[in-house]
Amino acid sequence: MKLPALSDVRSAHDRIKPFVHRTPVMSSQQLNKIFDCELFFKCENFQKVGAFKFRGATNAVLSLPEKDRNNGVVTHSSGNHAAALSLAAGMNGVKAFIVMPETAPAVKKNAVAGYGAEITFCRPTLKSREDTTREIMEKTGATLIHPYDNFNVICGQGTAALELLQEKRDLDIVVAPIGGGGLMSGTATTVKGSSEKILVIGAEPLNANDAFISFTTGRLTPSVNPVTIADGLLTSLSELTFSVIRRNVDAIFTVSEESIISSMKLVWERMKIIIEPSSATVLAAVAENQAFFRGKKIGLILSGGNVDLRKLPF
Amino acid sequence: MKLPALSDVRSAHDRIKPFVHRTPVMSSQQLNKIFDCELFFKCENFQKVGAFKFRGATNAVLSLPEKDRNNGVVTHSSGNHAAALSLAAGMNGVKAFIVMPETAPAVKKNAVAGYGAEITFCRPTLKSREDTTREIMEKTGATLIHPYDNFNVICGQGTAALELLQEKRDLDIVVAPIGGGGLMSGTATTVKGSSEKILVIGAEPLNANDAFISFTTGRLTPSVNPVTIADGLLTSLSELTFSVIRRNVDAIFTVSEESIISSMKLVWERMKIIIEPSSATVLAAVAENQAFFRGKKIGLILSGGNVDLRKLPF
Repeated sequence: MKLPALSDVRSAHDRIKPFVHRTPVMSSQQLNKIFDCELFFKCENFQKVGAFKFRGATNAVLSLPEKDRNNGVVTHSSGNHAAALSLAAGMNGVKAFIVMPETAPAVKKNAVAGYGAEITFCRPTLKSREDTTREIMEKTGATLIHPYDNFNVICGQGTAALELLQEKRDLDIVVAPIGGGGLMSGTATTVKGSSEKILVIGAEPLNANDAFISFTTGRLTPSVNPVTIADGLLTSLSELTFSVIRRNVDAIFTVSEESIISSMKLVWERMKIIIEPSSATVLAAVAENQAFFRGKKIGLILSGGNVDLRKLPF
Repeated sequence: MKLPALSDVRSAHDRIKPFVHRTPVMSSQQLNKIFDCELFFKCENFQKVGAFKFRGATNAVLSLPEKDRNNGVVTHSSGNHAAALSLAAGMNGVKAFIVMPETAPAVKKNAVAGYGAEITFCRPTLKSREDTTREIMEKTGATLIHPYDNFNVICGQGTAALELLQEKRDLDIVVAPIGGGGLMSGTATTVKGSSEKILVIGAEPLNANDAFISFTTGRLTPSVNPVTIADGLLTSLSELTFSVIRRNVDAIFTVSEESIISSMKLVWERMKIIIEPSSATVLAAVAENQAFFRGKKIGLILSGGNVDLRKLPF
């Protein structure tokens, strides 16, 4: 299994730069005071489709071999990856097939359809999703772009940390959320490739702590039906992301639902930016481990800002 | 009555620059597409205390004659101006006295107290507020800093537009919200002083349309108990702000409560930034007058981002 290197992330960055937003790095004197450290937020909530996922999807589409471009790409997802892949494909003249459970919210169906992707509905079971995806691949020859178990996707996700380090060279620690591990793998590869001295920390909901358990036991152990408000982090590590994380992540901190919600509210109120619960895990990790982070310069990757404003947890 | 000039705004900017945030100018391809024009948002929601008010308050404090500094400053307000004046005074070693109705929300009392100001509570009537303020002035010799009927405050507020024009020189139109007219006066002075060719438009809630009526009839006509979700725009023009606005504003567009709310939601969802209803009036003005704005380069001043997350209108 070939693991990504910093040079792969750099190549990805050169490839996707014309298509992605270079998102700002923001800071807040109030939050620095509250936590007695210097926080630098890489704002992927301002990325296209409102999430870092657009980086990986764009790199995957741009990395397709010429012979496969005409057959399109396919994925099963009802979340940010579906929207990201649809837009990335559309911008590059590649056809996108998205498999979605028929139960997906109308707003997500409309977003994906609006980007010009072809949606195929399936029953809301893993088997139906996988069967439907396989049928599309057989019929069309489309290339499967997995949301995180994919070398090119991981390299694309790493470009957020690459830009962060370009702007803030002297960080002590970088924290990223862990779901399936794509963002974490890309981040860890980039940070450790740039400097062994910078600590890399994963932030994971206690209620979906498969990465923490896998990391601690050394055995890949998927979550079973996890429930957390951080709905972008329900997925479990793959062999590939687990391998990258074992090698390049220094520690994984689990965070409670309460501190995810209070950290999200703190960012909304003090920084006036909208972040989704998955993003809030990184600040929650700081809030729950203040002695560890005190006095340090800390880069925090905010994964995205897609929330349903009618269902806020506060 | 001496009206401010561009040179006064420039001096204010030199004075306050070390103390205020230079807020970013943001744009959104999605919103540009929806409204078929180019929108440039000057993000005073990222300003200290979450609102443009900090600019004017800082300029007023820094412009105090040396002999008056030791006696402090006083104002009656329970809103952003109170917080802004408290912080601006505190940062410059000047004592701030804030008169607040005893009915003000605890969160606002705490914010002002947290900035080190001395709060005097009064009954929630205009007479009690004015009497209490006068008593403090007589007792302490503090200088009254009115939230908008004040030359230095207006010049401070104009610095937001000054920074906007420094970054975007080729705007066709600049739109700002109108409440008491401090931000509008500063904006109009700056824009017209920089270029007669740029149109200056005020955005005002239809439900608090004193500026529209005064502007149209040529006679200063205060609102009587207006009710609008844009709670920063309940105040009426003063002689000073009316004079500036008559001279430098090209038109005032009134906007409905519905379009304020839908514009606020649109900014939250698409731009992932938190703006208060008063800020949303500027986009509402574009939304309600699309033919007027089509194809133009438009600067929009977002006044602030202080909202009660437990009482959202959507």
